[in-house]
Amino acid sequence: MTTRKITVKENILSANAETADNNRTCLDNRQVRMINLMSAPGSGKTELILRTIDQLRTKYRIAVIEGSIASSIDADKITQKNVPAVQINPSGGCHLDARMIQQAFGALDLERTDLILLENVGNLVCTADFDLGAHKDVVILSIPEGDDKPLKYPLVFVEADAIVINKMDVLPYFNFDLDAFAEVLGGLNPSARVFRVSAKTGEGMNDWFSWVEETLA
Amino acid sequence: MTTRKITVKENILSANAETADNNRTCLDNRQVRMINLMSAPGSGKTELILRTIDQLRTKYRIAVIEGSIASSIDADKITQKNVPAVQINPSGGCHLDARMIQQAFGALDLERTDLILLENVGNLVCTADFDLGAHKDVVILSIPEGDDKPLKYPLVFVEADAIVINKMDVLPYFNFDLDAFAEVLGGLNPSARVFRVSAKTGEGMNDWFSWVEETLA
Repeated sequence: MTTRKITVKENILSANAETADNNRTCLDNRQVRMINLMSAPGSGKTELILRTIDQLRTKYRIAVIEGSIASSIDADKITQKNVPAVQINPSGGCHLDARMIQQAFGALDLERTDLILLENVGNLVCTADFDLGAHKDVVILSIPEGDDKPLKYPLVFVEADAIVINKMDVLPYFNFDLDAFAEVLGGLNPSARVFRVSAKTGEGMNDWFSWVEETLA
Repeated sequence: MTTRKITVKENILSANAETADNNRTCLDNRQVRMINLMSAPGSGKTELILRTIDQLRTKYRIAVIEGSIASSIDADKITQKNVPAVQINPSGGCHLDARMIQQAFGALDLERTDLILLENVGNLVCTADFDLGAHKDVVILSIPEGDDKPLKYPLVFVEADAIVINKMDVLPYFNFDLDAFAEVLGGLNPSARVFRVSAKTGEGMNDWFSWVEETLA
């Protein structure tokens, strides 16, 4: 029984990896870069995306893919910025897969896009398993969630190119130990870039913007 | 392809529902009550459980089942309270199922237990699908996560018997609209009991303790 389950999962992931590679090639051929933003619910993914659009829209043509279990609250906020946005509701599912992203590409004008910001489903577990074809995978962790999250949800942190610690403005009101976090993350993923930001106040955001620009270079 | 996927999911959920019913019967036969606590990562499930143990341990024999993707951080905190605790690591999986709970029962002395507090995996999506055999399902939502979560993750809120709004002590630092939340929740699940608490400061916790005691009556 266990063996069968693993085989099914392996087949799904291997088919997904192939589609993800195709997605990346499709983007590379058109000089588009895609950044996949993953986090728990409520960590501030949408706010980070909105601020990134504000900062970089005059230099780059940005599009957004929004993954939400239900509702179009986030996609509506993006649309108000007048940037192309595609929403994917994985109808009760808990993660996006590469095929959904491939379909979303069809609704975007990739020839006129430099950067796709992909807001993944709010889920620290299931999102980690699925390569979507992004060039960079980013985890956003907010101060109120606590410094122990890399120990509890290791896979998503191990695979990330960058970690954004968001809501730094409320650090005084929570027991988040930045040194303890750095030590744990150093053991799991020493090469990840770490940004300490408040998307709300703007604190630390310039370093994040620079890193996004580097991925576009 | 879609049809096959749905069938597999239905079969899994129907087998799970049967095991969940068996779990409930097993508990009922021994006058044990089980409360299933679900939330996103970092909302304060463990702290709520620790405070509930402190308050009720002189009146009831409490045991804890801990679901964690990785690490034993939470189970260790519980064990320090000298209450029986079983940890389930669903090895890479994103949710608990009724069979895992059935196995956990084997590691507890149910004849000498009045109340099982079940800490589910930190996940607002996948946990909602699986009946575990609990008598009450509770969702914990913390203030920093935002008031829009019932719209974004409706299923878990629709099915809950109670919602605990935690971290009320930091309300002044976040844009959480309690009235807006109440309105949305009223549309989805008007019969759910709602508690506004801070497990950290103790604010509002007496109502929560009373409700837990009512489930034991």
